[in-house]
Amino acid sequence: MRHFIGIDLGGTNIAAGLVREDGQLLAKCSLPTGAGRPTDDIVSDLVRTANLCLEGTGLKMADISGLGVGVPGAVDDARGLVVRTTNLSWHQLPLARLLNEMTGLPVRLGNDADCAALGEVCAGCAGDFSSAVMITIGTGIGGGFVHNKKVFAGWSGAGTEPGHIPLVFDGELCGCGCRGCFEAYASANALIRQTRQAMEQNASSLLWQFAPQLDAVTAKTPFDAAAQGDETARVVLDRYLDYLARGIGGIVNLFRPEAVIIGGGVSAQGEVLLAPLQEKLKQYCYAAQYIPIPRVFAASLGNDAGIIGAGLLHLEG
Amino acid sequence: MRHFIGIDLGGTNIAAGLVREDGQLLAKCSLPTGAGRPTDDIVSDLVRTANLCLEGTGLKMADISGLGVGVPGAVDDARGLVVRTTNLSWHQLPLARLLNEMTGLPVRLGNDADCAALGEVCAGCAGDFSSAVMITIGTGIGGGFVHNKKVFAGWSGAGTEPGHIPLVFDGELCGCGCRGCFEAYASANALIRQTRQAMEQNASSLLWQFAPQLDAVTAKTPFDAAAQGDETARVVLDRYLDYLARGIGGIVNLFRPEAVIIGGGVSAQGEVLLAPLQEKLKQYCYAAQYIPIPRVFAASLGNDAGIIGAGLLHLEG
Repeated sequence: MRHFIGIDLGGTNIAAGLVREDGQLLAKCSLPTGAGRPTDDIVSDLVRTANLCLEGTGLKMADISGLGVGVPGAVDDARGLVVRTTNLSWHQLPLARLLNEMTGLPVRLGNDADCAALGEVCAGCAGDFSSAVMITIGTGIGGGFVHNKKVFAGWSGAGTEPGHIPLVFDGELCGCGCRGCFEAYASANALIRQTRQAMEQNASSLLWQFAPQLDAVTAKTPFDAAAQGDETARVVLDRYLDYLARGIGGIVNLFRPEAVIIGGGVSAQGEVLLAPLQEKLKQYCYAAQYIPIPRVFAASLGNDAGIIGAGLLHLEG
Repeated sequence: MRHFIGIDLGGTNIAAGLVREDGQLLAKCSLPTGAGRPTDDIVSDLVRTANLCLEGTGLKMADISGLGVGVPGAVDDARGLVVRTTNLSWHQLPLARLLNEMTGLPVRLGNDADCAALGEVCAGCAGDFSSAVMITIGTGIGGGFVHNKKVFAGWSGAGTEPGHIPLVFDGELCGCGCRGCFEAYASANALIRQTRQAMEQNASSLLWQFAPQLDAVTAKTPFDAAAQGDETARVVLDRYLDYLARGIGGIVNLFRPEAVIIGGGVSAQGEVLLAPLQEKLKQYCYAAQYIPIPRVFAASLGNDAGIIGAGLLHLEG
């Protein structure tokens, strides 16, 4: 079975892993990115991290079939270019050529969120499905679409942006500059905002026991309070899940995936999140009486998904 | 160069054409569908229409490389099944096998809107583009997504439904049963509704000269009145184009196509529609300062698109 090295290049850390063709992560390690350093130094550390994760595995660089890198930004994989990154100020960097010269390996590039989706679909909970959308709920909403084990990167190579479909006409300001995007209502930050608003209107809510000040509210707070029977928290969550289901319904109507994978911290809530979401999707998926509704899963690989998916970029080719 | 027969099976007519591999439509003809007749009779007439369109072309059925059928509903092309149609009450019909037995040809099946999109992308205005979304503005909003000259059918084979992403939270009732879908604000029917509402509030608008009664309003009416300088019509159209751009922006953020093709009667307005739409997309496409915005075209093949695309389904394989 072939082995690949997958690298998840983040603004904070470079995480690399030895990934077997079947998606098994056999070893991993990480180094700080040191964003702001000269590009050459960071590229050298990508190779250094790759070498580090081979130590003790009995494999040498020459035994590896390919190197894949997930980048926080837009890539042009066909030309081996990082088109643009958000954290590293890289523009039109020929990263594939640089890494190939240093390692001798074939190099594939992907968007980091797309790599995470690929990892989850190929090696995680949705392994048997022909296509899946991953929705990562964090500060914003990111994600990726995987079809026949291939990342769908789109024309511009930036990957899909599931957080930026409209949801509420002229609603809350979104990080992208538009108003009322799905992200502005269904991200973890949006849930925190919705929870705080409900607390301000309900002085007797149990929410105040879990977060004595508004600053202490996290996306977990309403789940904790709802588990204790708090009605205010239940209303917040029901509305939040409705936003989430409406947005996912729209995404499903376009991509028609077989599975939807929810990633990010909120996905740790498991069935408390997934069961009502699956039920609400019946309402928001087109022709749900005739066309099967995709199954909703929680992501299972955590931060490893991006490493595994970066390595498995080579399966595509 | 290979030749195919493409059939656009509609609720009213069966339209068949002789389609050359490069997308040229060399001959066409049609017969009434006679929806409601026994399935066998309709299937026989599909073959009859195919034979008819070969007459006088110098080609015989044995010279044809494949038969493709665009069906108004969901298909499972891999298994050669019509899963479900809206107008013909067909369920799990093995149409590919039936037509193969009668013609000896390989048969491919597609959703009719997907076939129209494929025809427009391969043989129409967007022929040079790697991927395109077609948005057909009619009673509702239909469409299709074509990527590398292949129809994107999704898991369930029903094709994408670009009309059914959210646009206005709990807004106008949509034909799909949800509220506030893109279709409910940007279809031709929606434009007619918006025009009528504006007329009821503006007795002196020129709109009344183009449509003396509200029943006489068509999707063309506001364009005609705006061309004469009517301010009410201009406001209606500006708002309509804004709805259209917001919905298309969301679709672009998911599919990241290189081109957007607008079909349906409204597309006949040409630059009056396209120029402001292209401009407004800058506002609603994610990271438009970094990621190129797709070019917007009007569909150019009319009803022939579905025939051509059905024939070109064979290019995929």
